[in-house]
Amino acid sequence: MRDICICQEFLTEAHKARICKTAEPLGFAPWFFTPDQLEEAKACLQNCEVLYAHDPELLRAAPASLKWYCCSYAGVDPYCKDPTLFANPDCLLTNSSCYGVTIAEHVVMVLLMLLRRMPEYEEVVRNRGWSNQLPIRSIRDNAFTILGTGDIGVNVADRLRSMGAAKITGLSRSGRAREGFDEVLPIRRLDEVLPGTENLIMALPGTADTVHILNRARIALLPPGAFVVNVGRGTAIEQEPLAEALNAGRLGGAALDVMDPEPLPRDHPLWTAKNLILTPHVSGNMTLGYTCDRNVEMFCRDLENYAAGRPLNSLIDRTRGY
Amino acid sequence: MRDICICQEFLTEAHKARICKTAEPLGFAPWFFTPDQLEEAKACLQNCEVLYAHDPELLRAAPASLKWYCCSYAGVDPYCKDPTLFANPDCLLTNSSCYGVTIAEHVVMVLLMLLRRMPEYEEVVRNRGWSNQLPIRSIRDNAFTILGTGDIGVNVADRLRSMGAAKITGLSRSGRAREGFDEVLPIRRLDEVLPGTENLIMALPGTADTVHILNRARIALLPPGAFVVNVGRGTAIEQEPLAEALNAGRLGGAALDVMDPEPLPRDHPLWTAKNLILTPHVSGNMTLGYTCDRNVEMFCRDLENYAAGRPLNSLIDRTRGY
Repeated sequence: MRDICICQEFLTEAHKARICKTAEPLGFAPWFFTPDQLEEAKACLQNCEVLYAHDPELLRAAPASLKWYCCSYAGVDPYCKDPTLFANPDCLLTNSSCYGVTIAEHVVMVLLMLLRRMPEYEEVVRNRGWSNQLPIRSIRDNAFTILGTGDIGVNVADRLRSMGAAKITGLSRSGRAREGFDEVLPIRRLDEVLPGTENLIMALPGTADTVHILNRARIALLPPGAFVVNVGRGTAIEQEPLAEALNAGRLGGAALDVMDPEPLPRDHPLWTAKNLILTPHVSGNMTLGYTCDRNVEMFCRDLENYAAGRPLNSLIDRTRGY
Repeated sequence: MRDICICQEFLTEAHKARICKTAEPLGFAPWFFTPDQLEEAKACLQNCEVLYAHDPELLRAAPASLKWYCCSYAGVDPYCKDPTLFANPDCLLTNSSCYGVTIAEHVVMVLLMLLRRMPEYEEVVRNRGWSNQLPIRSIRDNAFTILGTGDIGVNVADRLRSMGAAKITGLSRSGRAREGFDEVLPIRRLDEVLPGTENLIMALPGTADTVHILNRARIALLPPGAFVVNVGRGTAIEQEPLAEALNAGRLGGAALDVMDPEPLPRDHPLWTAKNLILTPHVSGNMTLGYTCDRNVEMFCRDLENYAAGRPLNSLIDRTRGY
């Protein structure tokens, strides 16, 4: 039997049974650990050719005989930035793009909070006040631009569409058409798109190309009153000009689930920026049954591919970072 | 020409043109006022047989020759409770059920805020803190009970369905099946439904039958951790036991856009209840283009019905209150 080291906190007995049922007929023996059994996991890992986990330090402890690291997170930028984590330079890396549903629910929530001016109403209510109706906007009949047309972008587009959005524009590296989008443009055309973008949703991976993709100049291209939502990586936005544009009222509001660095330092200007909804990197929450089931399912399917010598569905190009 | 008095703040020139185009060929002359021209509106009203407005005091100034009052709001409980507002006891009353879209967006927003524990995350962020991931819930694969299957209930059901809700149960007086609901039960079966209701959405009109429909005993029937959203009328909930159940952690959270009275007194226990999202009666906001267009459209269609002597689509039974 070929050994698989699995170190996850979310696996139910049903998930473990599902993995065993896939692995054993293919000649693999899964060994299960939780993150509080890190030392035991590291010891077991010495004989394993596959690791299914989400901890860079556990990967660093793996021997050169490790052939495949399946990361249960979607974002694998820490692994691509630091090749020294892999003792085997040819080790395969896969990610787990199963967070689209929960992140899309987060995006719908914060978008509606921005469109419906909840930061302002919440302040009124905190002061036990009442308020006249502020002018609000709607998802219905409005246009949305989504940076990134992967699992997250597609799930966001589906929900906006079903709530009556008038137009959904996607931007991706390739600009390849995707279902649910009215149009998908190559990301090099971003500067053309921003002046007409009242609602910008950013769901990009953290790669060298996406660092500060929304920089000071591009923030200035957005129309007055625009909203910005980021659920990809904090590095994608130049944060100081964002805070300035919010405080000056040039932007209508923003919602950031990701920041750079995380957590933010206590004196960071984002804490006090106007109409800014901050959440502590929780949109891709791992507590939903659906997300956990999909995570296990994606690992099992790629284990079948791996055993058969087929390409892995979720393979990451470690030099490109996605 | 027969005169129509119209007193609204939201009408655009296009809306006025739409009304004139309907009214004039039918022999009606519309007179337009805004609420800050109340005295002029009252003077004009003396010769009018139709009033399209939303102000009880303006209605009170109408002569016995007024035959139809079209209220541009959905909730007409103030008019049904106080028959002295009508000089003509046989005056027709219609309402404007065009708020379903904007209220449904509000419901999706606050439901997601409850399911995703935003009141707790917001407190963490206000203290410039960070936080581990709290267990959250999802619209996907979850069940929802909607009290009221009118314009609001149907629009809420549509959105929950398209976000992957597992089951949507409606309750209405008749229990008549409606598209978008897995089942609709008569409201007399409420006590059977509550113990299995983790997510309760209340969108009922304010009538004698709906006062305290969610009373202390029924709040106790909800399962531990349940969420309650109310966008109908504040009188539908017995507020003190709701605040107690929230503070004791027996309910997971609540979101109230309507309260009794409005505004709440400054020492009211709801201001400080745990995991409670309060908004100052703004879910049916009148600032969306869609809502305003529908409002005018519904008035014009019923004006055609009125002129032809046909029954009005939005007629209210003033004794039943809906």
